[in-house]
Amino acid sequence: MTRSTPKPAVVLLSGGLDSATVVAIARHQGHAVHALSVDYGQRHLAELQAAGRVAAALGCVAHRTVHLDMNQFGGSALTDPAIDVPTSGPQDGIPVTYVPARNTIMLALAMAWAEVLGARDIFVGVNAVDYSGYPDCRPEFIRAFQSMANLATRAGVEGQGLTIHAPLIDWSKAEIIRRGHALGVDYGLTVSCYQADAAGRACGQCDSCRLRKEGFAAAGIPDPTPYR
Amino acid sequence: MTRSTPKPAVVLLSGGLDSATVVAIARHQGHAVHALSVDYGQRHLAELQAAGRVAAALGCVAHRTVHLDMNQFGGSALTDPAIDVPTSGPQDGIPVTYVPARNTIMLALAMAWAEVLGARDIFVGVNAVDYSGYPDCRPEFIRAFQSMANLATRAGVEGQGLTIHAPLIDWSKAEIIRRGHALGVDYGLTVSCYQADAAGRACGQCDSCRLRKEGFAAAGIPDPTPYR
Repeated sequence: MTRSTPKPAVVLLSGGLDSATVVAIARHQGHAVHALSVDYGQRHLAELQAAGRVAAALGCVAHRTVHLDMNQFGGSALTDPAIDVPTSGPQDGIPVTYVPARNTIMLALAMAWAEVLGARDIFVGVNAVDYSGYPDCRPEFIRAFQSMANLATRAGVEGQGLTIHAPLIDWSKAEIIRRGHALGVDYGLTVSCYQADAAGRACGQCDSCRLRKEGFAAAGIPDPTPYR
Repeated sequence: MTRSTPKPAVVLLSGGLDSATVVAIARHQGHAVHALSVDYGQRHLAELQAAGRVAAALGCVAHRTVHLDMNQFGGSALTDPAIDVPTSGPQDGIPVTYVPARNTIMLALAMAWAEVLGARDIFVGVNAVDYSGYPDCRPEFIRAFQSMANLATRAGVEGQGLTIHAPLIDWSKAEIIRRGHALGVDYGLTVSCYQADAAGRACGQCDSCRLRKEGFAAAGIPDPTPYR
């Protein structure tokens, strides 16, 4: 019996709950996972440190972090200290925590690495349910990015093609947690909080913490998040 | 007589001949030009220094440089010291000087800044004639990026729309030079060479130098490039 060589895939890994689940899914599908984190000047550096722990725990073959000084543009509560992080629950319209062009930039960086690796698969943990106000978390955005990527790259031009996988896109937080739990993800290693402290402990108050707490409760799985 | 407020535009400015011409075109169309340079670990740092001179000379209202450590991915003669820059003229297929995902990443960064500024126009100096082997210099790539951008951003979702302008896309080098010359671009400030020295002097041998030289000759305009 022969085993085929695992196909490389680039997986965007923030260090949060969603992207850790996506790493586990890509591994379960047999990919050699190359995890990519992007430090775009966000407030929650603790999440990036979590990314390193998650990549090691889930058996990624490589983990790279690209640094990008996006905060010079301003415009988001996550990168601009002049804008408060909301704690009052989702509002109508596009949230102030939306980072301009974030998913486009992160997917473009993943595309660059995929091209160098010869990888034909990119995975991203975008979710249209919990982040319904973010334009770049919608299925139509992912489809449009994939079309563009197949015109932008050697893989597209020379015929093999690139696929952008967004397996969580229509899952509830509880479904994501159940799936990751079944695949052995230790969510105690992940950080979702918009304002985690230096030790990675969550505030328990911000929108991201609230969605995460409700997700564990709805999934019926104990919440391993360290709260401060 | 009243004058309308100039509309902001983000223009990608490498410091080379093409992008300097695009800044002049955007200014001529009445835009308040916000020039964006991307330091993606390329060999020709002199080109980035030229960008600052060009932005000042052409009256840009702002100039920002984003630093991006793309060279950790490797894969291009322009960012990977292990790959030689070719001097033997264009070859068939995708050149080794092609930087994976470069235009996608640069346009994504421009899109981020445009969104924060409320700008609806992005200009880029891609050219399908001289760089026919680069997949991300083709008109179909620009169209696909624009479609994706209009799904990714507030501007797209909230209705005004983003336009990606690539005015040089089907121009010859001579046509680009003639247009920029008519608009007052001082090409002596620009650097196109793949291996310019620290003072910005060109090698005169690489593919980029050869295309530029031939362009001035064909345009019948004296070549102001400082050669070493």
